Amino acid sequence: MRMIDLIEKKRDGIPLSPEEIRWMIERYVAGEIPDYQMSAFLMAVYFRGMTEEEMVSLTAAMAESGARVDLSEVPGIKVDKHSTGGVGDTVTLILVPLMGAAGYVVAKLSGRALGHTGGTIDKLEAIPGVRTDLSPDEIIAQAKRIGVVIAEHTQDVAPADKLLYELRDVTGTVPSLPLIVGSVLSKKIAGGADLIVLDVKCGDGAFMRTLPEARELAEALVRVGNQLGKRFSALVTAMDQPLGRMAGNALEVKQAIEVLRGGGPDDLREVTLALGAELLLLAGEEKDEGAARGKLARLLDDGHAWEKFLELVAAQGGDVACVEDPERLPRAKEVLEVRAPRSGYVRRLSARAIGVAAGLLGAGREVKGQAVDPAAGVELLAKVGEEVEEGRVLARLHLGERARPGEAVHTVSGAFEIGPEPPEPGELILARVR
Amino acid sequence: MRMIDLIEKKRDGIPLSPEEIRWMIERYVAGEIPDYQMSAFLMAVYFRGMTEEEMVSLTAAMAESGARVDLSEVPGIKVDKHSTGGVGDTVTLILVPLMGAAGYVVAKLSGRALGHTGGTIDKLEAIPGVRTDLSPDEIIAQAKRIGVVIAEHTQDVAPADKLLYELRDVTGTVPSLPLIVGSVLSKKIAGGADLIVLDVKCGDGAFMRTLPEARELAEALVRVGNQLGKRFSALVTAMDQPLGRMAGNALEVKQAIEVLRGGGPDDLREVTLALGAELLLLAGEEKDEGAARGKLARLLDDGHAWEKFLELVAAQGGDVACVEDPERLPRAKEVLEVRAPRSGYVRRLSARAIGVAAGLLGAGREVKGQAVDPAAGVELLAKVGEEVEEGRVLARLHLGERARPGEAVHTVSGAFEIGPEPPEPGELILARVR
Repeated sequence: MRMIDLIEKKRDGIPLSPEEIRWMIERYVAGEIPDYQMSAFLMAVYFRGMTEEEMVSLTAAMAESGARVDLSEVPGIKVDKHSTGGVGDTVTLILVPLMGAAGYVVAKLSGRALGHTGGTIDKLEAIPGVRTDLSPDEIIAQAKRIGVVIAEHTQDVAPADKLLYELRDVTGTVPSLPLIVGSVLSKKIAGGADLIVLDVKCGDGAFMRTLPEARELAEALVRVGNQLGKRFSALVTAMDQPLGRMAGNALEVKQAIEVLRGGGPDDLREVTLALGAELLLLAGEEKDEGAARGKLARLLDDGHAWEKFLELVAAQGGDVACVEDPERLPRAKEVLEVRAPRSGYVRRLSARAIGVAAGLLGAGREVKGQAVDPAAGVELLAKVGEEVEEGRVLARLHLGERARPGEAVHTVSGAFEIGPEPPEPGELILARVR
Repeated sequence: MRMIDLIEKKRDGIPLSPEEIRWMIERYVAGEIPDYQMSAFLMAVYFRGMTEEEMVSLTAAMAESGARVDLSEVPGIKVDKHSTGGVGDTVTLILVPLMGAAGYVVAKLSGRALGHTGGTIDKLEAIPGVRTDLSPDEIIAQAKRIGVVIAEHTQDVAPADKLLYELRDVTGTVPSLPLIVGSVLSKKIAGGADLIVLDVKCGDGAFMRTLPEARELAEALVRVGNQLGKRFSALVTAMDQPLGRMAGNALEVKQAIEVLRGGGPDDLREVTLALGAELLLLAGEEKDEGAARGKLARLLDDGHAWEKFLELVAAQGGDVACVEDPERLPRAKEVLEVRAPRSGYVRRLSARAIGVAAGLLGAGREVKGQAVDPAAGVELLAKVGEEVEEGRVLARLHLGERARPGEAVHTVSGAFEIGPEPPEPGELILARVR
């Protein structure tokens, strides 16, 4: 087999066989196919797409490119979740202890993001002392002991995904449905969970800008994933404005704590409950979605989820005092305010712009290996549909060490659209794919 | 400027500015843009194409990526030709001395092909002693002295083309019209000629399989080339069956000699005269195509072109005795015959298959740097339209050192289609673009 022939096949719209895809991924991970051939292939996939059979083969080959997470010795039903990424998406920090409180095992592997805001690992590390570089044995031991773990993705699970993602990131081939499917699912297929819920974000602050695109991705993910021996369910959720009221690492931890204590912003709680309910339905524990959500809502309200979160933080070496008193989490030395230029209703609030602003404040990383600033970020005091008076504070900007405050203020100001009429209320859960 | 942004622009169908294209080519030649980004860009060009303005910018940037051939101190009108490549295409070896005999200066830079049969340089080197690695000073001196030179392409002229072609060759991005335009024209724009005729081959044995495709390429080449300070004309010529009756290095030299002596196959003579006539028209020496052809035909028939060829061979150190007695050119130790399986008319003769067979016999190279076998190749004793009797010899296969004779015989047999009715006669010159 020769890579040039596979590139030309894909270029000409001819589907590759499972053997061809497996050969290509194996040889690429082995370093025998050069990046310049793979990137030409990826661009051809961008234009030609992949059949469902090809996506299944790609995902399987990527999942088998390294070690599998083996949770077989941990008793209980193992569940997992994945989000395609959005601004203020702190759901993992809430859903993991919540599902743990509901009696499930969640050994969540997460990443550090290269982008405007940090990934789940960056957020968790805003809690002083927390360790996330757990070994497979530590993950298994902690899962056995308390049922919940949030650890950094190890490179030996689905290494093909890491290699391909890095290449896609610099070759304009990130936004390709089959490549997103392979990337998202390969880690889940190689992971230790049996039931997985996917949160496909849709809107201005997400990969998928429109509902048809997001639905197509959700359907592909569930269809392909279910052919690979695990059970998947997906929600398409709104990402036109940020989820919750915080974008930044410590700020999002603080907000996750509010939800775990039964409070917090409605939209963040809502999305978390909806994703959790999908897992209870997948597990067959509940047949009715409302009942499933009710059960999980009680675990947030009665303190069980919060207790599990404290266990998680303590197990991973975190400073529990900081979590119990979030004012002790890293705080910015300086905070700027952005005020409403006129009275009216917030008609739009661009998630993308808030994400960019959080990055300008220091919450993300521009190049690999850069440290994120845990204290940096944007706090939103008004969201879409709310009435504001001229001069009222719309947002607080928490300045990190390398913040570019001028640009950030400008960006946040531009993120708000204020008009005389209230906007049509939008849905939060846009579609379910089971 | 960042390469990732240019990739994404092209991917999304947004034309690049001249500055962007210039920056990209300069940085790529400087080794600052990695191959994996360039190959993704090239594949995006494959799918999105380029506007005429982009092609002009690309060609100019590639032409300016290295040295220019400066023939300004050589008196006379400098002309050049380029063929997109076909099987049995020995035109250069005839047209260069022919134009020299007509009083023009031709300093032709040619290449060694990576393919089934050799390039012009490989063919010329089938003549014992011929040197083709001439320095710029040697080229100028010889052009001044005898008006004609055939030298190997130096890497300091349009180095961007060499780098890009090598990358395209292994990433499935060779058959892209704007990339072919940039490649063909950049060398001509950086070259020393003012008037250039292009031979766009069309058919089974060429890049462009159909007339509309070939015409589109010819038109793009002439349109773009004429915007860059030189004058171009193009013919689209048939490449369904091989040109002439030989495919192989020494075999083609032998046949070029026949034409230069006033004989040889009609089609090869015809294409050579048509291309030469275009140059006389471009130069304004003749207004009438028939008159131009007549003038050149006389130079073939009266020995002037042949004399110029002998001068060329002698000037470049070649063994003139071998040229005067072509039986002394390298000859294969073994020759196999392929005979007609039935009586009838040759209805088709696949140029592509004959090219592949020549490669199987050793006439080409499969990997860079491999030596071609000058003696290897296919000699055709019947061509399309000719009547053959069962058992008559259709082709002689001249076996090179590393020939795979079984496969070659099979391929040549399959190249002939013999049927009871004669085929419709085909045109040789399919289109003219001026």
